[in-house]
Amino acid sequence: MSSPHSAVYLDNAASTALVPEAAAAMTAAWTHPGNASSLHGSGRAARRTLEESRESIARDLGARPSEVIFTGGGTESDNLALKGIFAARRCEDRRRRKIIISAVEHHAVLDPAQWLADEAGAELIVLPVDADGFVRPESVRAALEEHAGEIALVSVMWANNEVGSVQPIAEIARLGAEAGVPVHSDAVAAVGHLPVDFAASGLSAMSVAAHKFGGPQGAGVLVIGRDVSCVPLLHGGGHERDLRSGTPDVASAAGMAAALRVAVGEREEEARRVGALRDRLAGVLGAIEGVRVNGALPVDRSLALPGLLHVSLAGCEGDSLLMLLDAKGVECSTGSACTAGVAAASHVLLAMGLDTATARGSLRFSLGATNTDHDIDVVAGVIGEVVERARAAGLLSATGARAGGVH
Amino acid sequence: MSSPHSAVYLDNAASTALVPEAAAAMTAAWTHPGNASSLHGSGRAARRTLEESRESIARDLGARPSEVIFTGGGTESDNLALKGIFAARRCEDRRRRKIIISAVEHHAVLDPAQWLADEAGAELIVLPVDADGFVRPESVRAALEEHAGEIALVSVMWANNEVGSVQPIAEIARLGAEAGVPVHSDAVAAVGHLPVDFAASGLSAMSVAAHKFGGPQGAGVLVIGRDVSCVPLLHGGGHERDLRSGTPDVASAAGMAAALRVAVGEREEEARRVGALRDRLAGVLGAIEGVRVNGALPVDRSLALPGLLHVSLAGCEGDSLLMLLDAKGVECSTGSACTAGVAAASHVLLAMGLDTATARGSLRFSLGATNTDHDIDVVAGVIGEVVERARAAGLLSATGARAGGVH
Repeated sequence: MSSPHSAVYLDNAASTALVPEAAAAMTAAWTHPGNASSLHGSGRAARRTLEESRESIARDLGARPSEVIFTGGGTESDNLALKGIFAARRCEDRRRRKIIISAVEHHAVLDPAQWLADEAGAELIVLPVDADGFVRPESVRAALEEHAGEIALVSVMWANNEVGSVQPIAEIARLGAEAGVPVHSDAVAAVGHLPVDFAASGLSAMSVAAHKFGGPQGAGVLVIGRDVSCVPLLHGGGHERDLRSGTPDVASAAGMAAALRVAVGEREEEARRVGALRDRLAGVLGAIEGVRVNGALPVDRSLALPGLLHVSLAGCEGDSLLMLLDAKGVECSTGSACTAGVAAASHVLLAMGLDTATARGSLRFSLGATNTDHDIDVVAGVIGEVVERARAAGLLSATGARAGGVH
Repeated sequence: MSSPHSAVYLDNAASTALVPEAAAAMTAAWTHPGNASSLHGSGRAARRTLEESRESIARDLGARPSEVIFTGGGTESDNLALKGIFAARRCEDRRRRKIIISAVEHHAVLDPAQWLADEAGAELIVLPVDADGFVRPESVRAALEEHAGEIALVSVMWANNEVGSVQPIAEIARLGAEAGVPVHSDAVAAVGHLPVDFAASGLSAMSVAAHKFGGPQGAGVLVIGRDVSCVPLLHGGGHERDLRSGTPDVASAAGMAAALRVAVGEREEEARRVGALRDRLAGVLGAIEGVRVNGALPVDRSLALPGLLHVSLAGCEGDSLLMLLDAKGVECSTGSACTAGVAAASHVLLAMGLDTATARGSLRFSLGATNTDHDIDVVAGVIGEVVERARAAGLLSATGARAGGVH
């Protein structure tokens, strides 16, 4: 058994450690009670912390404070954007029932989109991606033209969470603006790791999750333009411009703001440092036979998330690799959705044209602030044996399958 | 200006201070990163913390672990219960479009119910309360009988957050069960302060918010029976029995579990201690001319939240009282919803039959773990002057209104 405390943690894209600045901001907020809606001194102090956090986050995202809506995380932000903007646009004009998304969206976008299709009369237009995971702006333009007057919204992620490909968001936002269609972007994988400026992007709305850049879990933001109509998901006291009711989580807002301040302030230097570690790791893995690097990295480094390396290892099961690496104290991810132990091939990789076997034999390594050269040394020391074992297991299982049918 | 740090905080029903045990559990969870859905050691450690928290919360609420769904707070729990159970019940049988609620529900229940009426074809049956804020079980029985076959769900709060009246929940749950109708209860004001046992209550679902009993803001639970159908609000990775997607907030779950452990463990003793303080405070306020105590307290102490005192002060504006008390370092609440500075008379008090002027001249004092006899002394020392001033201001404003029309 590996100890989580001494393990080499290369799964920062799943959740990265809370930075000390965020912990300090949160514990400071805890020192006095207060509901930010209360009118007395403690309430006003809580409100002040909340609004200062909102202003700080707005500054670091290139947004106005009034555009920052606090939510319970990235999934809630995505659900609010998709369902809320769809409902508002459709209410204005019943013909607007189509939603343009990319094939490589996170489940937090795919699933509410599918729910809208199943339950609320939406029709999905799913844009393909190329072999490196990129959405082509031409496909957005074509869809907007073909379905003019019928599009409720466009949602394309800023950077893909599995393979790290950075999408041409500004161009897609411009096409949406020209067509008078709001464009939302799930920027959960991007914020803190890439330059993200909401105003400059031209987007109508953008989802953010704190625990992807050193803030707390259970905290996020939907950045949404003042002129973008959106129906709330949570009704109650009318908090957050009436867009998201519920007692604001003051400590988490403060923690998120502190973490974002650190992430944005150190971004360029950290991108260089982490990018160099990733390149070293790519070299280590690339030296193994039958390994291919997926996503933008081999094509254009400037369009790849700096801390992310996604590889397919021929003849291996991703889950076996993950478990063998875990046993050696290296923690990474298959990058694919895995519910209740059923490993399915990633929809992202399939959309990029990988075959199912290759898709299932993939690993995502995601680096963060705590990683050092030592961590790459550890991977280099164990990866050969791990791949060999995974291939032997794969061979065995394939033989078993041939002998005994499908298991 | 009062300093929030030295103020006498008597607004624990709005938000109470995080207890040290919760802070310790949260900072411990922060010491290692991890997404509870990740399969490696760190992920499994995070999952272990999450599931141990779930088990602890379940034990303290008389529920099974599988009935505990983590949410982002009480408002989300209420929205999920109302909208989710309504959608599921209606999907099973289109005739089930009526929702029975009480007139004194929190806005986190009233507003989603109203939204369902406005947007989703629901019809609301709003049960009256008596002069002390109690729902009569007979009114539930009558509504269930009159609209048999058409009720989607019943939602009645466990204890009222403004006046503290404890509702006959077990009886209402029994009536619902007999009619085959799920009964939900917003138990946000009750948990940690009253004996709350989900299994014994007979409820189908129950909302909980951590920051009302010493846990963190932004964290809650919907307790929901395994056999109760409910459509999710947040779609994504299929977390929490597929009822609430989004990366689980492990630290908050641990903090909530720790706080609930403390609150439930010390509940009886603390109810006695806080109840005695409340009685002293009631004596101080009751000695002022034109003061009446609202809710269950004057009628039946056993049916009143132990830490809550709600009073109406004739000839005063609640907001003036609140501000004058705040200036003297005493923090309380008007108990009414106040959005964007517009003070409206509380729907709870109006439902209890108070006239608008009396309702607007009301204050809620809510005591918690940090309050002592000293706090009551402070109130006793300032309340006379404060009421005198508020009455003088009220008189002046009434004269001004007569002279210059409505302002």
